[in-house]
Amino acid sequence: MNKNLQHTYVAIMAGGIGSRFWPSSTEETPKQFLDILGTGKSLLRITYERFLHLLPSKQIYFVTHLSYRDKILEHIPEITAEQVICEPSRNNTAPGIAYAAFKIHKMDPQATLIMAPSDHVILKEIHFLELLEKGVDFCQSRDVLLTLGILPTRPDTGYGYIKCDAKSNGNPYRKVEEFKEKPNLQTAMEYLESGDYLWNSGMFIWRTAIILEAFQKFAPEIHQILARGEALYNTKDEMEFIAKEFPKTPSISVDYAIMENADNIYTIPADIDWSDLGTWNALHAFLPKDQNANVILGKNSLLQESTNNIIKMHSNKVLIAKDLKDFMVIDEEDVLLIYPKNKEQEIKKVREQVIKKFYDK
Amino acid sequence: MNKNLQHTYVAIMAGGIGSRFWPSSTEETPKQFLDILGTGKSLLRITYERFLHLLPSKQIYFVTHLSYRDKILEHIPEITAEQVICEPSRNNTAPGIAYAAFKIHKMDPQATLIMAPSDHVILKEIHFLELLEKGVDFCQSRDVLLTLGILPTRPDTGYGYIKCDAKSNGNPYRKVEEFKEKPNLQTAMEYLESGDYLWNSGMFIWRTAIILEAFQKFAPEIHQILARGEALYNTKDEMEFIAKEFPKTPSISVDYAIMENADNIYTIPADIDWSDLGTWNALHAFLPKDQNANVILGKNSLLQESTNNIIKMHSNKVLIAKDLKDFMVIDEEDVLLIYPKNKEQEIKKVREQVIKKFYDK
Repeated sequence: MNKNLQHTYVAIMAGGIGSRFWPSSTEETPKQFLDILGTGKSLLRITYERFLHLLPSKQIYFVTHLSYRDKILEHIPEITAEQVICEPSRNNTAPGIAYAAFKIHKMDPQATLIMAPSDHVILKEIHFLELLEKGVDFCQSRDVLLTLGILPTRPDTGYGYIKCDAKSNGNPYRKVEEFKEKPNLQTAMEYLESGDYLWNSGMFIWRTAIILEAFQKFAPEIHQILARGEALYNTKDEMEFIAKEFPKTPSISVDYAIMENADNIYTIPADIDWSDLGTWNALHAFLPKDQNANVILGKNSLLQESTNNIIKMHSNKVLIAKDLKDFMVIDEEDVLLIYPKNKEQEIKKVREQVIKKFYDK
Repeated sequence: MNKNLQHTYVAIMAGGIGSRFWPSSTEETPKQFLDILGTGKSLLRITYERFLHLLPSKQIYFVTHLSYRDKILEHIPEITAEQVICEPSRNNTAPGIAYAAFKIHKMDPQATLIMAPSDHVILKEIHFLELLEKGVDFCQSRDVLLTLGILPTRPDTGYGYIKCDAKSNGNPYRKVEEFKEKPNLQTAMEYLESGDYLWNSGMFIWRTAIILEAFQKFAPEIHQILARGEALYNTKDEMEFIAKEFPKTPSISVDYAIMENADNIYTIPADIDWSDLGTWNALHAFLPKDQNANVILGKNSLLQESTNNIIKMHSNKVLIAKDLKDFMVIDEEDVLLIYPKNKEQEIKKVREQVIKKFYDK
């Protein structure tokens, strides 16, 4: 291990409920715990194993909701319960990130922390790990917050974008000028054209000292609440404090609380064949397709005159379909979803409707 | 009971495999054993109970394939195994009908026999039973073969037709001139217009003496083979004889063997709200629809912008669908079929393909 990585930690963020991936992803077993790619391993497990090439298991932490603690320990039996940092309430990403920073900072005030989602996919693993190693170096010698920006390969309207400072002069680390919401197609095409925009991957590297400073400055309420527990972190009293105080933190995303406000944010453009697998369409874009552009997750299917669908069948169930175009067909044990692929942004809402209509009894 | 019904018997034909109703109907559990209408009873049970209004249980027989004997006794526990007439091989309808006629004729040479499919639906039950009673009377005093013709309500291209003699002069029993194959739409419209055509229901009334005479004349091979067993029917030796000899009979339909050749065939037009439920489209036509012309067999479904579909969900599974038009969505435990409704004639073939591809290992 690189000497610089001695004080480096990963926190894998694994608390999401993946509602856009419903009905495969459920609140009980969200996407990160599923073998979405059909490799025999959950996305969580794949993510963990990726970081094992960089760091020993004991330096890898998980940030999740309390209700997923056992599931994480089941998927990653190599770790101890102390490595699973549990949020007792769902307060978006910022409070959990601050909590993880406080805990790890107390253990190791020199800590550099890599924050990474648990449910993304990266094909160029070696290049990714090299970027992280260099990124850690960059952060250790500068008071910066670094985010991995993905080199866009298409004008995707499903991702947020990072606008880099145009005056980077060949420096691989580019100052971030602005974070941009998901654009419309026209804007996305302009972004792609300009060369100054990257996809926002939600992966960060920072020293705990620097991110805590940023919380103090830009999200003082979160900082104040969690700072009160400083003496208790990593002791037997931590859990009681968190159970009581964490739910009082404002529910806000780290992008909104910190990234859009801080002025010491840098990015490094990454060409790592990445997908956030955030939606069925993202999965369709990422996975290999048959000659009619269908992605089929399932062993037994007979598709006729059907193009550009994404199909996921439960277990070994047989699908026969004809004249189906641009649909997602998601078959789970209790739910079958047959939905136009280009309307997948509605799925989150449909999921709520269905839960209200059929399950809230 | 009407005195004339003392020598009357029903033979419910329950040997079909309902392949056009796949994947709900399987060779193991074909359509007649399914609760297709969601009433809590199989079509077989509904058919049996309908005839119980006319005749006591002991006068109701079943003609089926040997492999379904136990299933029939399970659905109709009131009968004895002797009432299930079993064909050891699949030789189409004519041999089974001849076999039933031989058996019942030996028990009761004065027998009048009503032959009825096990998997049709009839809403006007009282009128249907009245027609049968009158039909039995008609057959008892004349050497005729009577078939129930259904008054057509639309130019259906899924049914065969019966052309009646135009010169019936108000007599409710009309001489049959010809049996017609399923017509195209233009021809079906002409049939409907003319008033001389009825749907071929596959329900017959005849004295066993008369139908056996017809077999002797028009299907002598079947008659000859089965006549050799006359001394054995209804004895302990029947089964051995049938196991050996029945498979030698030619495989032919009763329509083709007898009805298209005999010249003593009469029909009575029946207005009984009937459907053969022969196909998913027939079921769609028959069942109540939602405001968008969808038929939904299943408790939990959320359909948006979807019209004119037939949906059948396995168990209590939830369906969510959008932008689905003119499809059948048939969800069974092991198979999901999503198929254009107007191409359902392909299902028989698709079923064979699927069985060959995924099940023949």
